[in-house]
Amino acid sequence: MQLLVVNPNTTPTMTATIEDAARRVANPSTDILAVTSSMGPVSIEGYYDEVFAVPGLLIEIARGERMGAQAAIIACFDDTGLDAARALAGIPVIGICEAALSLTAFIAQRFTVVTTMERSRLPVEALVHRYGMAGRAKVRAADIPVLSLEDPNSNARNRLRDEITAALLEDRAEAIVLGCAGMADLAADLSREFGVPVIDGVSAAVKQAEALVALGLSTAKRGAYATPVSKAYLGMLEQFAPAAILSA
Amino acid sequence: MQLLVVNPNTTPTMTATIEDAARRVANPSTDILAVTSSMGPVSIEGYYDEVFAVPGLLIEIARGERMGAQAAIIACFDDTGLDAARALAGIPVIGICEAALSLTAFIAQRFTVVTTMERSRLPVEALVHRYGMAGRAKVRAADIPVLSLEDPNSNARNRLRDEITAALLEDRAEAIVLGCAGMADLAADLSREFGVPVIDGVSAAVKQAEALVALGLSTAKRGAYATPVSKAYLGMLEQFAPAAILSA
Amino acid sequence: MQLLVVNPNTTPTMTATIEDAARRVANPSTDILAVTSSMGPVSIEGYYDEVFAVPGLLIEIARGERMGAQAAIIACFDDTGLDAARALAGIPVIGICEAALSLTAFIAQRFTVVTTMERSRLPVEALVHRYGMAGRAKVRAADIPVLSLEDPNSNARNRLRDEITAALLEDRAEAIVLGCAGMADLAADLSREFGVPVIDGVSAAVKQAEALVALGLSTAKRGAYATPVSKAYLGMLEQFAPAAILSA
Amino acid sequence: MQLLVVNPNTTPTMTATIEDAARRVANPSTDILAVTSSMGPVSIEGYYDEVFAVPGLLIEIARGERMGAQAAIIACFDDTGLDAARALAGIPVIGICEAALSLTAFIAQRFTVVTTMERSRLPVEALVHRYGMAGRAKVRAADIPVLSLEDPNSNARNRLRDEITAALLEDRAEAIVLGCAGMADLAADLSREFGVPVIDGVSAAVKQAEALVALGLSTAKRGAYATPVSKAYLGMLEQFAPAAILSA
Amino acid sequence: MQLLVVNPNTTPTMTATIEDAARRVANPSTDILAVTSSMGPVSIEGYYDEVFAVPGLLIEIARGERMGAQAAIIACFDDTGLDAARALAGIPVIGICEAALSLTAFIAQRFTVVTTMERSRLPVEALVHRYGMAGRAKVRAADIPVLSLEDPNSNARNRLRDEITAALLEDRAEAIVLGCAGMADLAADLSREFGVPVIDGVSAAVKQAEALVALGLSTAKRGAYATPVSKAYLGMLEQFAPAAILSA
Amino acid sequence: MQLLVVNPNTTPTMTATIEDAARRVANPSTDILAVTSSMGPVSIEGYYDEVFAVPGLLIEIARGERMGAQAAIIACFDDTGLDAARALAGIPVIGICEAALSLTAFIAQRFTVVTTMERSRLPVEALVHRYGMAGRAKVRAADIPVLSLEDPNSNARNRLRDEITAALLEDRAEAIVLGCAGMADLAADLSREFGVPVIDGVSAAVKQAEALVALGLSTAKRGAYATPVSKAYLGMLEQFAPAAILSA
Repeated sequence: MQLLVVNPNTTPTMTATIEDAARRVANPSTDILAVTSSMGPVSIEGYYDEVFAVPGLLIEIARGERMGAQAAIIACFDDTGLDAARALAGIPVIGICEAALSLTAFIAQRFTVVTTMERSRLPVEALVHRYGMAGRAKVRAADIPVLSLEDPNSNARNRLRDEITAALLEDRAEAIVLGCAGMADLAADLSREFGVPVIDGVSAAVKQAEALVALGLSTAKRGAYATPVSKAYLGMLEQFAPAAILSA
Repeated sequence: MQLLVVNPNTTPTMTATIEDAARRVANPSTDILAVTSSMGPVSIEGYYDEVFAVPGLLIEIARGERMGAQAAIIACFDDTGLDAARALAGIPVIGICEAALSLTAFIAQRFTVVTTMERSRLPVEALVHRYGMAGRAKVRAADIPVLSLEDPNSNARNRLRDEITAALLEDRAEAIVLGCAGMADLAADLSREFGVPVIDGVSAAVKQAEALVALGLSTAKRGAYATPVSKAYLGMLEQFAPAAILSA
Repeated sequence: MQLLVVNPNTTPTMTATIEDAARRVANPSTDILAVTSSMGPVSIEGYYDEVFAVPGLLIEIARGERMGAQAAIIACFDDTGLDAARALAGIPVIGICEAALSLTAFIAQRFTVVTTMERSRLPVEALVHRYGMAGRAKVRAADIPVLSLEDPNSNARNRLRDEITAALLEDRAEAIVLGCAGMADLAADLSREFGVPVIDGVSAAVKQAEALVALGLSTAKRGAYATPVSKAYLGMLEQFAPAAILSA
Repeated sequence: MQLLVVNPNTTPTMTATIEDAARRVANPSTDILAVTSSMGPVSIEGYYDEVFAVPGLLIEIARGERMGAQAAIIACFDDTGLDAARALAGIPVIGICEAALSLTAFIAQRFTVVTTMERSRLPVEALVHRYGMAGRAKVRAADIPVLSLEDPNSNARNRLRDEITAALLEDRAEAIVLGCAGMADLAADLSREFGVPVIDGVSAAVKQAEALVALGLSTAKRGAYATPVSKAYLGMLEQFAPAAILSA
Repeated sequence: MQLLVVNPNTTPTMTATIEDAARRVANPSTDILAVTSSMGPVSIEGYYDEVFAVPGLLIEIARGERMGAQAAIIACFDDTGLDAARALAGIPVIGICEAALSLTAFIAQRFTVVTTMERSRLPVEALVHRYGMAGRAKVRAADIPVLSLEDPNSNARNRLRDEITAALLEDRAEAIVLGCAGMADLAADLSREFGVPVIDGVSAAVKQAEALVALGLSTAKRGAYATPVSKAYLGMLEQFAPAAILSA
Repeated sequence: MQLLVVNPNTTPTMTATIEDAARRVANPSTDILAVTSSMGPVSIEGYYDEVFAVPGLLIEIARGERMGAQAAIIACFDDTGLDAARALAGIPVIGICEAALSLTAFIAQRFTVVTTMERSRLPVEALVHRYGMAGRAKVRAADIPVLSLEDPNSNARNRLRDEITAALLEDRAEAIVLGCAGMADLAADLSREFGVPVIDGVSAAVKQAEALVALGLSTAKRGAYATPVSKAYLGMLEQFAPAAILSA
């Protein structure tokens, strides 16, 4: 089984972190194909960056499907471009926020997502609401830039710990969800340190993707996820016209 | 007062319909600047098209703001790119779905949105939910392509009438919201024909934009609508890096 | 265009504040007709006062419509008598709470209403819920009598400032809505002082009323807003029987 | 124990029906004092009538409390004036809609309210929502004037039966709530005829009022139900100023 | 009228407390039959204990109905086994949480339930949600074992007072609901001490049960509360097969 | 990895169906241990049967954990006993309803659960609500006894097909969830026949359990899932006292 894991930001070192996390939990027979998007922002922080991460992401998903991937994972906690990707692809597509929340729901009644920047807090809250967890999950921002997670000299991990501490005390969180793909390497250590389950979305998504493939399930192509209508796309975006991207 | 009205699909004839509707209701002192996006799909039908309508839309909004527009309207009923535009722009930005729903709420307790294609029904339902109207508004699709609205020989208007009839009978709708910018020219006739208020989002958005400008109100730039972080954007999308687009 | 603005409490000095705010934002071609109800409480603080503010309010709305007003505004943040007024009137009727919330929703994702007395907090919360903003807006009471806003020696404005400060810090409000018609003169100063949008409902309602009139929209007279059934009214209230009030 | 039952419309024959229903279920030691409001509409059909039923209702509640009533019931299914009455009175006040819904919730998971006129359907739906039953109860209108229930030659009871039949089939209702005080005499017969529980709000409210009195419970006078602030009331409404009405 | 009150834990001294509370508020003509379950945990603290309290509870309800009881009360604030009991019994069955919440709703807009152990907080929150009070009621745990309420030397009552104090200040509770049958003797004293209504579920349930019986209402036996299907039950549980338990 | 799959009804032939479905999708390295409860009803149809299925279920889960199982699956679509099992067990426990809904949410926006008997419809609806899918999923009952699924001469499968047809047409379902463990063998055929994804909960739960084990995640033992308090259990249920069952 081949799983495509797309890092929709354009920072290859973050892809490496993501790939490690994915490989660590994948089944022996699962082949993890981790790719970095070739266009767009170096990190995804808020609504504006999200928009420009999607074209590169969709290119990678279309290419991955043509190369034989059986499922795709979008490795950004905003679940950037998830709906468009599901409409485009014939294979199932999973976002890491959605995957993390749905697995956490099996093991905790109340939990807290700790994400990076304040500007991402409300977009993640909207996802929590969309996925039916509004009564169960709170969202906190540690107020750290995404790429500071890669800088050993930054204060990012301490800020993250502070928010986890606050979540356990003030939110009575029973578990913590890490709200950024760039935190994928921290789950095990933080779980040990705080003595509660700490869930990373990349790992969760790998297992959910394996599940869908094993069960032969893929996106229902009725309604809003029907394959995009073939039509003209103008300007520099013509390469993304449905016919173009599907046959490129 | 100068209002920018962006048609985020790339079909100039639809822009003409939108511009007419906007001018018809604008204050005498309001200058309507209607523009067609120069890149992306010729119509926006579902999640995939939405993605690729946004870059061109944001270019026009940034350009319009530099040229002195005091507010911007996104003339697509999916409110395509609304959050990113609000983060980017210093001027207020209004989506036509949001504008139509909020005006209709002043005159009807229960109403129905009639949109074009089935694949747009659930995205519009999600907007209805986001804007707090889930208990009041239903969404129906007339199952017609967006551009068929421009074709006098198509059956589009009859299909639209059929859904309005069904909404009045089955949903007990007290008013009808037209769920596509391309229907902007039909509101008055349909209202006369059916004897109920029929609301067009373009017109509604013009008045809401005028209201915000008159009151000196603009997007609160705290939290999720804070100005995008300056950072590198790679590949063909580097022209959209926040610094680039804001100073272009 | 003639807009009727009814102050449903019987304090003319508050009407003056309201009228000033309305004129300041009205279009040049809009004629503001501000009236004070001639019967009922001198201020509206809680459920009991609301009841007795409505008869006088409805008399003014019926009279205003007969005199040619094209829309009516109820200038009390409880949206007192709004549903009855909509059933009665042929012209559109707008409450200032409803107007303020719907305009604020265009510029902020999370905001806080600061009202006067604790006894008004839950009624305003019920309106926030009714208008679909329960997930977005909090309500605080500054614990000040309505009429103390008119007394330059009272501590009312300082109490108001304290609650705004708390809203920005604790609620992470991106904007503030002033929850009393008697605060209509304070919005600009408070916005400057706190550096966030501060919305006054009277001003918002004027622009929304202008919008409805410009678009030719009025209350859908189906269902709960159908014109009241003609019938006998007994005792001192017989003057309010639908036939009487509509033809008085 | 003395219970006040106020018919807030001004039709004494309906009070007789209500009084009979109340007496039939009251405890032997409960004294039912049924009164007809002396001012306002002869029937309450929609928002407009509601407004003018409240002053007369509040007079009766204040008078009843002074005369020694230990609880008051508002015998109109719109729960007309309930919040104002609770703020005014020192004794507990119960609405018949609220009472009917809360008792029905003990015996059925899904049920339907059948009310009179279409214009009352949405107001009752709002009550269903307020009382936390939105997921459990549907509302239907039989499209009959309130007073037609008193006319043996009208078709009202057949229309009511038709809606009950539809509720059992289409809503899968497990029980029926009669949505008008004027139907209080029909519950037993309809229950026998349809073989399901049929709940009348007047009877339900009598038992709930007896319960509150027996338990020594009354309205919490904190927050929105605090006693009205003493203040001037102008015009013909001065007799309703809190000080006046409480000491009249 | 005979009312069965079942203490579903197996501690007779708690049954005595419950019985006292029930008798104190029952009508003179009501015969209270209080019984202790003969099997299961000595106190019900959390999901696990709940499971094993139900068989003994159902035996008592079936027996009570055979002996002529006209309604049954489940005297545990988790409303343990309520749905199964309603399916089994021909008489109405009331849980004390449901009864307390529905009576409190008549006298307060916002209130707080104070229960015993933290592990019971979320189960009670789920009930608050089920009964439609999620927007009105908060739940607090005093962190005290159930049986400590019976120990005069424990700190339980002081812990309870601390939470009531916090509820009044922080939750702005207008009334307090005691969240354990073992607190049934404390309501009057605490109400006097804190000056707010304090509601005990046992007392509330007695009055609600009397109400249902007086009105001739019982569980609607359609849908989920239809009498259990007759079928084989294996092992030591065969004595609980529907046919066995109903005819035992 | 060893997964325990408990059929909480006492019909071994249904366990065989469940075991087959589980083995078909399990990883090669996963050892499926399917067991039939030794006490309780032969099928679980409604609230009453649920109660008596739990003791036997918990015995099997405690025994399975002692024997080395790393996760447990409750193979009944009511997710019978799930909360108690999570409090009891140190290993993660998954219900098949929860597993099916959460996997389906990755591939469809709107879907329908088709369960067996009408009396199970509302309990399943309550689960749909609990798991956050109330806006996305409908529940239908095919009105067939559970064990009729095993009878080749029954009409059960045709009734099931009828409801699937209705769900696709009337609910616009994009996917179908089979609402009974006894349907586990039908998913592939029905998916082929109807051309939409058809999800079986047993298969879904196997993959979710594998996911949790692979990620080292288990129930957060804070709050409501804390290990049951050690205490006396009386009567025939003493064998289920926490200390007894955990050390048996």
